Amino acid sequence: MRILGIDPGIGRCGWSILDSKGQVMTAKNFGCIETFNDKKIEERLEVVYKEITKLIKKYSPDVMAIEELFFGNNAKTAFMVGEARGVILLCASESNLPVSIYNPLEIKMALTGYGKAQKAQVGQMVKVLLKLKSVPKPDDTTDALAVSITHAFSEKIQKIGK
Amino acid sequence: MRILGIDPGIGRCGWSILDSKGQVMTAKNFGCIETFNDKKIEERLEVVYKEITKLIKKYSPDVMAIEELFFGNNAKTAFMVGEARGVILLCASESNLPVSIYNPLEIKMALTGYGKAQKAQVGQMVKVLLKLKSVPKPDDTTDALAVSITHAFSEKIQKIGK
Repeated sequence: MRILGIDPGIGRCGWSILDSKGQVMTAKNFGCIETFNDKKIEERLEVVYKEITKLIKKYSPDVMAIEELFFGNNAKTAFMVGEARGVILLCASESNLPVSIYNPLEIKMALTGYGKAQKAQVGQMVKVLLKLKSVPKPDDTTDALAVSITHAFSEKIQKIGK
Repeated sequence: MRILGIDPGIGRCGWSILDSKGQVMTAKNFGCIETFNDKKIEERLEVVYKEITKLIKKYSPDVMAIEELFFGNNAKTAFMVGEARGVILLCASESNLPVSIYNPLEIKMALTGYGKAQKAQVGQMVKVLLKLKSVPKPDDTTDALAVSITHAFSEKIQKIGK
């Protein structure tokens, strides 16, 4: 199974392509789409949309795993990340890609077994599980890998359950 | 000038096509895109995206005027409306349509001269200004007309200022 993991955002949108087969997980590729605020918001959203569409065409993933974010009371941040997630979900729908959404607690639990794990611990687990030389930068990329790993684990658990 | 007015939302997304020439404003068409929660969020977003794209192709507007929403502390609502606005702004960017954003205060000021006007007052002004037989339903449609009227007024004021 090939998983497109996404950590949504407008300024930085992390992505990962993870292949999961039996016990083996391989990070096929990963990166971060960056857009800058010298451009209009609609142009930045179009960049995110085009890049994600390109990734789907290039890697033909079986599923999109996306991080669900919590914002507390920051409605403005929620709104901006919402805009990015809107165009990302549109990419999935246009490609008939099923979408699985995981919240930070689920991701931390899947990777470290502890829901209140620190960012650095999650990063270390991403590095170890995928046999990477270092923790990918920026954090958004690592987060995109983490959500794809979470989906791989979650699928395995579901299979065992059957 | 032809203005595509949008009141963004996933469940209901109001739209209007307003022609503004000199002192004359004409509502060419208006309506509301509805999607229901028996569908997945990504499918609902795709409906909004396709319908807005269709409107742009059909009516060739010169500009998109969109309502900027305030949410107080409701991050969840902000997030969902953000998702809808993301795909709507993408439509504008893909069609090289300039975007003007107006907040509720600006819209109320433009239509009634009073920033704390009630929804019903705004609706009445939409009806009178556009010589409609009744206030359009649902509210989202009226709001989409109100934001397009706001843009028409705003353009006039800018011209006078020059």
